[in-house]
Amino acid sequence: MAVEKLSEEERGSWLEALEGWEMASDRDAIVRTFKFEDFSEAWGFMSRVALIAEKNDHHPEWSNVYNTVEITLTTHDADGLSHRDVHMAQAINAL
Amino acid sequence: MAVEKLSEEERGSWLEALEGWEMASDRDAIVRTFKFEDFSEAWGFMSRVALIAEKNDHHPEWSNVYNTVEITLTTHDADGLSHRDVHMAQAINAL
Repeated sequence: MAVEKLSEEERGSWLEALEGWEMASDRDAIVRTFKFEDFSEAWGFMSRVALIAEKNDHHPEWSNVYNTVEITLTTHDADGLSHRDVHMAQAINAL
Repeated sequence: MAVEKLSEEERGSWLEALEGWEMASDRDAIVRTFKFEDFSEAWGFMSRVALIAEKNDHHPEWSNVYNTVEITLTTHDADGLSHRDVHMAQAINAL
């Protein structure tokens, strides 16, 4: 099943509702940086995100430096943001 | 205890012996990219690296996109490569 990019209408309402996420500067993707007490906490968070990602078969592009985790969400199959990114971002925010 | 940068002599012998690692283009750090079958395998590898990192209290800068993991090692306290990076790279290679 093809995944469709978000329409203009969907972008306006859905992306604004995603607390903490911003548009990437150079591509059709959303980005959020998370800060934790230490690596252990950051890794605990990443482990939970990994389970969500595998369950939804939708994987983030992400990086970690000690207590900081930066997550980028986009849908390669749609060549940009899709509903799948919104759902993933909501699930991550709910952690 | 201060951590000292690798000496020139140490760089020659130790860094060359680290299979698969290369010097970063823009800083005194070593980088290696690992490819796996899928996210599950990549995550399994990352989990093992995370345990090593926490045990040694020496944490990588790393990123993951689906089946690919890129790891950068450097020692902030030494403002460059130290023995700790060499040991960490050896431990990662041994996985």
